[in-house]
Amino acid sequence: MNIIENVRRNKPLVHCITNYVTVNDVANVVLAIGASPIMSDDKKDVSDITSICDALCINIGTLNSRTIKSMLIAGKKANSLGHVVLLDPVGAGASRLRTETARKLMKKIRFDIIRGNISEIKTLAGLSGKTQGVDADIADQVTEENLGEAVSFLKKFSKQTGSIVAVTGRIDLVTDGFSCYVISNGDAAMKDITGTGCQLSALMTAMVAANQNKKLLAAAMAVCAMGLSGEIGKSHLAEYEGNATYAKRIIDAVYNMSDSVLEKGACYEIM
Amino acid sequence: MNIIENVRRNKPLVHCITNYVTVNDVANVVLAIGASPIMSDDKKDVSDITSICDALCINIGTLNSRTIKSMLIAGKKANSLGHVVLLDPVGAGASRLRTETARKLMKKIRFDIIRGNISEIKTLAGLSGKTQGVDADIADQVTEENLGEAVSFLKKFSKQTGSIVAVTGRIDLVTDGFSCYVISNGDAAMKDITGTGCQLSALMTAMVAANQNKKLLAAAMAVCAMGLSGEIGKSHLAEYEGNATYAKRIIDAVYNMSDSVLEKGACYEIM
Amino acid sequence: MNIIENVRRNKPLVHCITNYVTVNDVANVVLAIGASPIMSDDKKDVSDITSICDALCINIGTLNSRTIKSMLIAGKKANSLGHVVLLDPVGAGASRLRTETARKLMKKIRFDIIRGNISEIKTLAGLSGKTQGVDADIADQVTEENLGEAVSFLKKFSKQTGSIVAVTGRIDLVTDGFSCYVISNGDAAMKDITGTGCQLSALMTAMVAANQNKKLLAAAMAVCAMGLSGEIGKSHLAEYEGNATYAKRIIDAVYNMSDSVLEKGACYEIM
Repeated sequence: MNIIENVRRNKPLVHCITNYVTVNDVANVVLAIGASPIMSDDKKDVSDITSICDALCINIGTLNSRTIKSMLIAGKKANSLGHVVLLDPVGAGASRLRTETARKLMKKIRFDIIRGNISEIKTLAGLSGKTQGVDADIADQVTEENLGEAVSFLKKFSKQTGSIVAVTGRIDLVTDGFSCYVISNGDAAMKDITGTGCQLSALMTAMVAANQNKKLLAAAMAVCAMGLSGEIGKSHLAEYEGNATYAKRIIDAVYNMSDSVLEKGACYEIM
Repeated sequence: MNIIENVRRNKPLVHCITNYVTVNDVANVVLAIGASPIMSDDKKDVSDITSICDALCINIGTLNSRTIKSMLIAGKKANSLGHVVLLDPVGAGASRLRTETARKLMKKIRFDIIRGNISEIKTLAGLSGKTQGVDADIADQVTEENLGEAVSFLKKFSKQTGSIVAVTGRIDLVTDGFSCYVISNGDAAMKDITGTGCQLSALMTAMVAANQNKKLLAAAMAVCAMGLSGEIGKSHLAEYEGNATYAKRIIDAVYNMSDSVLEKGACYEIM
Repeated sequence: MNIIENVRRNKPLVHCITNYVTVNDVANVVLAIGASPIMSDDKKDVSDITSICDALCINIGTLNSRTIKSMLIAGKKANSLGHVVLLDPVGAGASRLRTETARKLMKKIRFDIIRGNISEIKTLAGLSGKTQGVDADIADQVTEENLGEAVSFLKKFSKQTGSIVAVTGRIDLVTDGFSCYVISNGDAAMKDITGTGCQLSALMTAMVAANQNKKLLAAAMAVCAMGLSGEIGKSHLAEYEGNATYAKRIIDAVYNMSDSVLEKGACYEIM
């Protein structure tokens, strides 16, 4: 496997239109994997910036009317150039603006990948996903018990949208409509850090952009790499350290990740 | 005391309209105490988001005409739903826009808590607070010498506004107009970190939201918890570490804080 | 040398209009050197804020039509008050909006310092700088081979603009048009962190503001201090740590920097 090696050799430029809460960690995780981030969200800027990039990551975490326009312009441009484009529909289901914006983006832009939590994805599929702020609702969560049902639902949604769909939570699922990676890397304490989801979206964008002949594998390996980095980062935490230091240690582990470490540590089955 | 236990059991959702400088640390400190943050500042988004939350923290640190409107909409909605609402008037006294915005917010929204430095609070009280950028002016500082006078002033301001008033500095004061906690937790080096005040505001919002039958105590314990975390974080710093690592260690200490550690370490008297 | 001592004694207030990607690290590095940052970017706020400050740092990293107006207002006000003003033309050459905005700012505002990578500076000089996102293009890079040529070009650009020009990369150059500091502090891994350039710009603004009788030396020492902090921070990294922890350790090293450490560690010649 040379998924990460390809990122480090090709150094894809990733245009991120993302929220201001987690943007610094997003930029650093893109650098950690060996790609290069650029943030730009003005409607007069995004078309030029996307044109010099290789991929686009749209995250609606702190959307506003100004940036929604920019997302549409950038997305259409990226589509016209054949760039990899990812949507992270943060908080879809938690407000009408977020739900409607995510749907509008899906209507106007062709997404290679949609990555969110299960409540967000259910919302986009027209089911009643109950997003709790930016977290999935417990009632929606993917468990060992409802796994088969969840996989079927996501495969169907993937086929309908033509996008790879990645759902992260206690169990992570990544499907192109035909195969579904069921991934169990990660640590429960990762949910105590703001932005691990946002980081994963940008990491995935970079990894897929550098591995376009194996997009599903690259997307799944991004999930494994993030989860494995969570496991590695956790192992280096002192007793008195907590979520803030942990956040940095996860990015550190991405920085030190190699294909061989990833291959050995990735924990998944395919359904 | 079960102030923190209540946060971890109730996991209040805290809507933050806050500045982009310190927003990541704010989100992580809210998670550290066991609550859940959501950031949203678009006028079409804030009403829905506040509706699914338990509390609202308004911080005017990087205010602009767009977000001021959102603050007003969110505040009124939160009031109508009986949510805990806190105002952090960052930089009031440093510019007309900040002073006028803080006053307008106080006129249109009922705040359970107002938390700032002494210059900001003096400004809001109509005295000539001399805010030095985002820091209190030395001439305004609360000291052992002027403590009685400061407590009287804050009790009066609290009664006038109907808000719990929390002033942080070398000596911290938290009053509901009748009792005043005089708190001496903390470390002088905390002022070398951007955003410990912003973090405290969000932490306080979460702690009060989860302890509504003892709001004053919860607000005072938030100040103690932040200060104590500053003391604990400092004790783990290596000689070559400085303000950037210190910032993370404080949030780490909040993450590891328990009611029993807080009870033992809280350093205050009541006037 | 008492460059840093002057910052810690004078504690200049630095008004930053900067991007939301790296703003937290920018604020902490300004605090680390002993100055005080304030971020404000609303057109109704910037004039008042700049008036109470000592210096202004304009960084166009995530510019938009709203903040471009604020940059112009703040810059003119700062000029009228004789404040130190610095321009960081992030991404000039990568989009028309960035290039045109940087040029417009240079036309309307008198900058004491312009700091960027070589591609950005070439773009501003009317040469075909090929900015790769927010990084310099390899073809543009300053090397031992083209050093003489690069120094001549920057001296000429400095004389044309009347600004101290600081170009950072593998070799850093700082010139007032007459002398040019050729600086070799730093570590290659600093390019794997988002925002070391933005941090340097704010650090330089603070250091020059506190040392106005020796602006060129202060600007050059800011570059040396940042590079040396990169060397010191690197030396404390554990094997499992990476770019995210490294970012904090660099700011930590600035926090612990003294004039004597800087004098001993600064590595430069003057051409």
